[in-house]
Amino acid sequence: MPSEVRHLLRAMFDAAVGAASPALRIPAHLPRPPKGRTIVIGAGKASASMARAFEDHWLGPLEGLVVTRDGYGVACERIEIVEASHPVPDARGLAAAGRILSLVQGLSPDDLVVALISGGGSALLSLPAPGLTFEDKQAVNAALLRSGASIGEMNVVRKHLSAIKGGRLAAAVHPARLVTLVISDVPGDDPAVIASGPTVADRSTFADAIAVLEKYGISEPAAALDHLKRAAEETPKPGDPRLAGSETVTIAAPQLSLEAAADVARKAGVTPLILGDALEGEAREMGRVMAGIARQVVLRGQPVPPPAVLLSGGETTVTIKGSGRGGRNVEFLLALAVELDGLPNVFALSGDTDGVDGAEEIAGALVTPDSLVRAAAGGVNAKASLANNDAHGFFEALGDQVITGPTRTNVNDFRAILITARDKGAASRP
Amino acid sequence: MPSEVRHLLRAMFDAAVGAASPALRIPAHLPRPPKGRTIVIGAGKASASMARAFEDHWLGPLEGLVVTRDGYGVACERIEIVEASHPVPDARGLAAAGRILSLVQGLSPDDLVVALISGGGSALLSLPAPGLTFEDKQAVNAALLRSGASIGEMNVVRKHLSAIKGGRLAAAVHPARLVTLVISDVPGDDPAVIASGPTVADRSTFADAIAVLEKYGISEPAAALDHLKRAAEETPKPGDPRLAGSETVTIAAPQLSLEAAADVARKAGVTPLILGDALEGEAREMGRVMAGIARQVVLRGQPVPPPAVLLSGGETTVTIKGSGRGGRNVEFLLALAVELDGLPNVFALSGDTDGVDGAEEIAGALVTPDSLVRAAAGGVNAKASLANNDAHGFFEALGDQVITGPTRTNVNDFRAILITARDKGAASRP
Repeated sequence: MPSEVRHLLRAMFDAAVGAASPALRIPAHLPRPPKGRTIVIGAGKASASMARAFEDHWLGPLEGLVVTRDGYGVACERIEIVEASHPVPDARGLAAAGRILSLVQGLSPDDLVVALISGGGSALLSLPAPGLTFEDKQAVNAALLRSGASIGEMNVVRKHLSAIKGGRLAAAVHPARLVTLVISDVPGDDPAVIASGPTVADRSTFADAIAVLEKYGISEPAAALDHLKRAAEETPKPGDPRLAGSETVTIAAPQLSLEAAADVARKAGVTPLILGDALEGEAREMGRVMAGIARQVVLRGQPVPPPAVLLSGGETTVTIKGSGRGGRNVEFLLALAVELDGLPNVFALSGDTDGVDGAEEIAGALVTPDSLVRAAAGGVNAKASLANNDAHGFFEALGDQVITGPTRTNVNDFRAILITARDKGAASRP
Repeated sequence: MPSEVRHLLRAMFDAAVGAASPALRIPAHLPRPPKGRTIVIGAGKASASMARAFEDHWLGPLEGLVVTRDGYGVACERIEIVEASHPVPDARGLAAAGRILSLVQGLSPDDLVVALISGGGSALLSLPAPGLTFEDKQAVNAALLRSGASIGEMNVVRKHLSAIKGGRLAAAVHPARLVTLVISDVPGDDPAVIASGPTVADRSTFADAIAVLEKYGISEPAAALDHLKRAAEETPKPGDPRLAGSETVTIAAPQLSLEAAADVARKAGVTPLILGDALEGEAREMGRVMAGIARQVVLRGQPVPPPAVLLSGGETTVTIKGSGRGGRNVEFLLALAVELDGLPNVFALSGDTDGVDGAEEIAGALVTPDSLVRAAAGGVNAKASLANNDAHGFFEALGDQVITGPTRTNVNDFRAILITARDKGAASRP
């Protein structure tokens, strides 16, 4: 039984990663070929592997430039791949953004531009609006990060200090046809948010951007504030004729990956319950909350009767206090295991869909009802490992790590807690 | 609409508290009258109000002694109510435990003993085993608390150092008939755990108790270890003839209160989803996780389509860093509101079923989609309030506190997050 359950959990994770894989998702979303040129552009952590999948399946002529994060490059033949710094932008990203903007100018309605957008693209596709310096933008960004402004508020400002964000890239593509293929790693999957929406109409205004800076008392650098107050050229708004023919398709997203895992569960006779595709919180605390829900499934058959699997996505955080090795997903799992304290019938897998949970190339791990007992037999104490943020060490000792290698895509974390039907006599907690 | 939703949430909370109210629950569970004497004993935070409800509805003669926490006493006419210290036991509790044990000795099979047991009873009903001093027990308890032992492990030791816990009180009641009425505030509702199960058979042994102390390297005081090693008289085990006629009824518990709230929801056409009756974790982190689940209901109709209410119980914790006023429930709510950031259609109520969330006589509060905006209009910043642990201040400013007065019962926290059907055009997050 445990080995069947392990295989099922792994099959769900593989389905989740597969549903986010450019190699599997891009072929189903190839646009119709144009009469004229086809130009591929893009930015984001998954965008190089999207480019590779695109050129592997595109039959016509092709050219282009895609910028990705250092170490995320994939060899392409016809599309140039550039690596740049993330999350802090650098001159390489700046140069790539400028070249991408040039590449799409002066096209005809017969030409096609395909934009491959994924998480991380905002930092990689940084280009100050005319009259602003890179340093001006950086200063505002740093002040916003210190201020406690929300991501949404920060994006309003960024879009109005940029020459490429907030739909400006799309405006530059006009009159060519524009198709944007998106891999989402943000709550809500709004294409206007992912990579700050370079190809998507923007609802926010210069006045909104000024209001954000005023709200947080940010009055420097003067050049940035002057730029906002001059309100030169607004970002393209919904209904802008330059974006009329533009098409945006989300080809992968946390929810789609969870749905793929849910399908695997259903086929195995296990009821899936998707709790959320964008859950956030401190990893170990989410572990405690999820343990409480799993216990309710075991003891009361609520919120769903077993056999069932609780699925969720999103990105937890880890406040590091110890000196161990770990990542969000394994820290969540270790806290879950400690809280479940050997409760029979509960198994779990958590992993980062990009294949890297923390600093090492380990995607995640597996928990079984006997994880704590097996660890103790090997001299490893779960509570001590958790206190030391040493979840990689804990699961390594058990041989229960999940290793995929880098998947070159990212739809955030994947968590599955599987509760099997109750064995006779194994119902109550000791 | 908002005022209807507020009323519905409050009706659910009132139903949850009502389902735990001794005045409402005791009458339905009165035992059949005996030929001989009726003696009421008990210990716990809700036990005085249980005693009052019992004597209000009991027709025959009656005598007894019940110990409750300081401030939780209720005037009774026939049952003596004693207050004692909690959570650290004192001489008053010690004396009461000794008197209760005397009261039930020398009874006949025609007599009836009714034990009214509720949370907190373990500290209130403290009586060292013969040969041990109060100080010996205290020293072991303190060492266990420092050791990181689980509640289950601590109880194994406590039961084997006590003259009254772990079913020993039940053995003393024999040959009289024993009926135990329990109000549970513990995960799993195991009567052997609540108040350390003075009237319930005990599965653990002296050897188990020694193993716990060895596991945590506790070797003092010598008198306590000698007592365990001497293994004088074991606690009554399941099947012990002295406990043969004993009957235990859980008259109130977190799950029963959640089910009562679920009934109210169903009657209002709202689908209830009970996530767990014993969820634990840092209050603000649980708020973030629950916000993610609520958002999934709004955006995807998962794990349940709206209108729906996510119900949960259990006890969160608060790590205090600020200087504000608050409690577990309001801290949870404030974090939930911050994370939801005005998401339309989500309302919530959280409250402590004992009527006191934190230091003040405020049970909890209500969250509406416009909580943050209304607070900001009054000059109150939600994030700043949360950072200062000032949730009472936040909800006071809004006039959204839930005040019941002390309910003199306790089935832990009650959380309800209600998601209404989507208004037209209010679907997407700004």
